[in-house]
Amino acid sequence: MPKDVITPRARDYNQWYLDIVREADMAEVAEVVRGCIVFKPTGWALWELMQRGLDERIKETGHANVQFPLLIPKSFIMKEAEHVAGFAPEVAEVTRAGGEELAEPYVIRPTSETIIGHFYSKWIRSYRDLPLLYNQWCNVMRWELRTRPFLRTAEFIWQEGHTAHATEEDAEAETLKILYDVYADFAEKEMAVPVIRGLKTEKEKFPGALRSYCIEAMMQDGRALQAGTSHNLGQNFARAFDITYTDQSNTVQYCWTTSWGVSTRLIGALIMTHSDDEGLVLPPRLAPIQVVVVPIYKNDEERVRVLEAVGRMTAGWKGRLRFKVDDRDNFTPGFKYNEWELKGVPLRVEVGPRDVDKGSVAVARRDIPGREGKSIVPQEGLTERLLGLLDEIQAGLFQRALAFREAHTAVVSSYEELKQQIERGFAIAYWDGSSEDEKRIQEETRATIRCIPLDQPGTVGTCVYTGRETTRQVVFARAY
Amino acid sequence: MPKDVITPRARDYNQWYLDIVREADMAEVAEVVRGCIVFKPTGWALWELMQRGLDERIKETGHANVQFPLLIPKSFIMKEAEHVAGFAPEVAEVTRAGGEELAEPYVIRPTSETIIGHFYSKWIRSYRDLPLLYNQWCNVMRWELRTRPFLRTAEFIWQEGHTAHATEEDAEAETLKILYDVYADFAEKEMAVPVIRGLKTEKEKFPGALRSYCIEAMMQDGRALQAGTSHNLGQNFARAFDITYTDQSNTVQYCWTTSWGVSTRLIGALIMTHSDDEGLVLPPRLAPIQVVVVPIYKNDEERVRVLEAVGRMTAGWKGRLRFKVDDRDNFTPGFKYNEWELKGVPLRVEVGPRDVDKGSVAVARRDIPGREGKSIVPQEGLTERLLGLLDEIQAGLFQRALAFREAHTAVVSSYEELKQQIERGFAIAYWDGSSEDEKRIQEETRATIRCIPLDQPGTVGTCVYTGRETTRQVVFARAY
Repeated sequence: MPKDVITPRARDYNQWYLDIVREADMAEVAEVVRGCIVFKPTGWALWELMQRGLDERIKETGHANVQFPLLIPKSFIMKEAEHVAGFAPEVAEVTRAGGEELAEPYVIRPTSETIIGHFYSKWIRSYRDLPLLYNQWCNVMRWELRTRPFLRTAEFIWQEGHTAHATEEDAEAETLKILYDVYADFAEKEMAVPVIRGLKTEKEKFPGALRSYCIEAMMQDGRALQAGTSHNLGQNFARAFDITYTDQSNTVQYCWTTSWGVSTRLIGALIMTHSDDEGLVLPPRLAPIQVVVVPIYKNDEERVRVLEAVGRMTAGWKGRLRFKVDDRDNFTPGFKYNEWELKGVPLRVEVGPRDVDKGSVAVARRDIPGREGKSIVPQEGLTERLLGLLDEIQAGLFQRALAFREAHTAVVSSYEELKQQIERGFAIAYWDGSSEDEKRIQEETRATIRCIPLDQPGTVGTCVYTGRETTRQVVFARAY
Repeated sequence: MPKDVITPRARDYNQWYLDIVREADMAEVAEVVRGCIVFKPTGWALWELMQRGLDERIKETGHANVQFPLLIPKSFIMKEAEHVAGFAPEVAEVTRAGGEELAEPYVIRPTSETIIGHFYSKWIRSYRDLPLLYNQWCNVMRWELRTRPFLRTAEFIWQEGHTAHATEEDAEAETLKILYDVYADFAEKEMAVPVIRGLKTEKEKFPGALRSYCIEAMMQDGRALQAGTSHNLGQNFARAFDITYTDQSNTVQYCWTTSWGVSTRLIGALIMTHSDDEGLVLPPRLAPIQVVVVPIYKNDEERVRVLEAVGRMTAGWKGRLRFKVDDRDNFTPGFKYNEWELKGVPLRVEVGPRDVDKGSVAVARRDIPGREGKSIVPQEGLTERLLGLLDEIQAGLFQRALAFREAHTAVVSSYEELKQQIERGFAIAYWDGSSEDEKRIQEETRATIRCIPLDQPGTVGTCVYTGRETTRQVVFARAY
């Protein structure tokens, strides 16, 4: 497997990404189904671990999983005005089934606020039924024109949480709890991807929401990637779907609802944050294989001796480490090193006959390529050593990504500076403009306001576009 | 919550089933989406545990999970002759997307042999690529006319395994390994549902298969439920989709493929095997809540004392038991008992002030209703006691279901006896008839040959229909 199967980032960032997706066996573009992909074993195994980490947090914060139908009556999509405008143009429609034309078409869910709203209006009667805290893991479909594996596909897999509350405060608290305790926590602790927690502008918010919050990450080309969104839907969907409850003084009130989701696009964020020109780099907490052991031998006698040592060494690993012993006979050690580097395995343990004699092994770190990342360590205490190294790699990847983001972020004080900075990364600017101003900037620069960070300095400055005084800072960037 | 919300089995078996599905918060019929259901929290939590048990077995037998697209070009469905006849009449079609009519419609996958066959033909080149052992968890859609929650729905969730092999023997071994080591093992050990491992007749096999194997379970009304199928597809799909490999002597050969699946219908099987007139009964290994603790108190002083004792008692349970402390203040203990009985929780622990004083608790078993299933046990050693009871209940449910099946199964030696026996349960009969004979019997009795058990007595007998001598026994029953 020659290394030059991966185009270097510096030469063609987009091609580098596609090469990794293909060569690491993550996904394949399904040309026969427009805009869709096949998730291959490495990609799906990674997604299963990501799902698990998210699902644990979703359950720990009090939510139950449920499953609503794939199909939604087309008329449902039309009930909430902004929602129609946002989603109607990109739905796929089922017009025929069981050999007959349907009286009313169904759409394949692009998101499920509408059908879930329909059921919530049946299920919720009294304040005692609130809050209602449900989530589902499912596939959704949006007929996107330009697609790219994981980042934007017609069908994608995600979780969508949908909750109903008695008061605006409860809904707002839920929206922020998800943003901080589920999404940002998962992104930073498990994916090792630093994120900015922020509020979307009116122009960028979810169709039908009162307020949309998001986490935004920086990719290695300086562009932003929206990694998750959490929406306070106000009473908009409650009014459209008649979701009401009787309060303690026996008055009928509209509920306050929220929705929030992250998707397989996170796989794209993970790849583009950590990987390098040798291939995929995976954070240990999400790596389907954390340690690969490559036995080295020249003949049967050595083979027996080495594999026996490997067996002893790995005997206590089950349940503590996700590992694989690559004892395939028809490939050379060098070929195997390349393959597991390409697939992003955090640690490689090499064991040859001389290592067996000396009671040592060679350990190579994926995050530090070449000789620098390689060391000889004793077999005694190896398990603890590997666990320690995995923690070190996890923390190191986060720090490296954070340092990269900081190095590619700058505060700008003029529109000219803004235009220059977005070529490099994030531009932080005071902002007091309108949605129309945002649109003009997007047309001129292809950059958008990614978010209004929730962490604000509280100082006064001059809006980069209108020249007015304001305390509000925003993040401008080009985005995926 | 009055007990009479559940219609007794003896009065109306079908209504009993629907009542349990509704009252245990398992699912709701989604009237606005024809033939579909909403999986509610209890139903979905149960499915997550079933998925886990199956997924572990699928991975342990060497399969990797992947994910193929939801949509399949309609022309793909038409490529394998029997497959067209079986599935074309019941597909849902996407004819419009992104606001435009599609040149070629897509169908929502009713099963994925065709699209997976397309990719396998691209991926498989050499004997070194074989066997290819993939599985996916996904939703599928079949426009069924008559639906019933879990048992038959337009959309359902399942896993479908698809493998490719170099030889017929390898494909046959795979098909049987799945039947025995994955499906039958899971059904009996986790679901506590005894199953007959068998081969389908030509009339009943999967459209496009060479041979279909199945596991068949008996429900409490004596009817059969097909709980899982494993198909040796021979070279039929390999020929239709050109799935070939180059063998060791450099000759191009067609692959031998298999497919196999179990679905959310298993939830229906579980309900109908174990539940009673009080509600759902869950086997402990799959119960989302294995133990519910109900504190009993009359005033604040008692409340503090009892909850403090409950806290001490349950301190070591996390990770060992799936449990819930039902400390809701607005419901009486009696109401709570009923609710958790209805929802099938295997063990209930009641703790009142006198129990605290005596260092004991009351434990009630869901599988033995009333006083008989209730005992006073010391708090000391309670955890071990509960774990032991859960094992006992698990084994007991299996034995009870097995005894029920045996009591409702009889060998019949004439067509008259067969007609009588299928009113009671399974009829075992010698069989040497044709597919036409089978059809006539089905028209006359509504019973079908559920399977030819793989475990055969090897004795000679007279075919119940043709009078010819044969060694082959089959199982006749009415089926879900």
